[in-house]
Amino acid sequence: MPPAKRILQPGPDQSRRKAGVRAAGKAPLKVAPSPSAIDLGVLNQHLGYFARRMQIWIFQDFIKKLSSIDISPAQFSVLVVIGANEGLSQAELAGTLGIERARLVRMLHLLEKRGLTQRLPSSDDGRRHALRLTRAGQTTLRRAQALAAQHEETLKPKLGAERYRLLLDAMRAF
Amino acid sequence: MPPAKRILQPGPDQSRRKAGVRAAGKAPLKVAPSPSAIDLGVLNQHLGYFARRMQIWIFQDFIKKLSSIDISPAQFSVLVVIGANEGLSQAELAGTLGIERARLVRMLHLLEKRGLTQRLPSSDDGRRHALRLTRAGQTTLRRAQALAAQHEETLKPKLGAERYRLLLDAMRAF
Repeated sequence: MPPAKRILQPGPDQSRRKAGVRAAGKAPLKVAPSPSAIDLGVLNQHLGYFARRMQIWIFQDFIKKLSSIDISPAQFSVLVVIGANEGLSQAELAGTLGIERARLVRMLHLLEKRGLTQRLPSSDDGRRHALRLTRAGQTTLRRAQALAAQHEETLKPKLGAERYRLLLDAMRAF
Repeated sequence: MPPAKRILQPGPDQSRRKAGVRAAGKAPLKVAPSPSAIDLGVLNQHLGYFARRMQIWIFQDFIKKLSSIDISPAQFSVLVVIGANEGLSQAELAGTLGIERARLVRMLHLLEKRGLTQRLPSSDDGRRHALRLTRAGQTTLRRAQALAAQHEETLKPKLGAERYRLLLDAMRAF
């Protein structure tokens, strides 16, 4: 992605470009705008557009920061919630994180193969499984949390402490 | 997804549950927490977790609101940017929206098949293509913008006008 500022604050050649296109008439069309001159149109007024950009930026940084232990954002949230709620069920985990059931099953299968999580029969109901971290899973989670905290620290100067706090608070509405 | 409040403000049974799990010892594990008692652990301090939840919520509402014209959030942003920058190239469009090139090509192919966009040879460079909306594309974009504006209006009361404005402003940092 190009730097947001270049998109959001188009340079002085923006008006020139628009006039050029209007004058160009029918195909073949003339002149390509330089990337700095691209007009976002009504996207500028849509929360969803910026939410998606932000989410992609944050996830890319997260993936980079945790590449040494190969833990994705979704895997991280699964490990954190199992670690904080030993014995919870797959349904509870899926419901909490808003992960589609089939996708969660695939993720847990992979985490089990890596020796990080376990599915144990629950004493309350033989059909359901209780999830927990293995020893190795606990170690990986500790490392992941340390790296994720470093990732989080890069977001604060990017936004400024006050805007960071406001953002973290406002997004809890969803 | 369950309502965020239930996750973020765990009820009074949270402490009971934690004590219960600690007392339960080894497998088989006892008691399932009720969904309201699930502890998010360190996810509570991660912007990325809430950014992803928000983005999914917004996209789901957007898709629902635009279901009558079958336009996805990604297709909407493509139509808006082509509409606002007639004649731009695929590379410029991909760069502006941060869409992977191969995915954009597939999207444009689909939009062309629906008769909404066109790729025309550029007069400047025979090898590149200039993108533009067809008449039908312009009509669809007008409808999409009206429906997207309705979608956007549902976000304001959800957040409150002041937090909505703060959020839209703060996310431009990315």
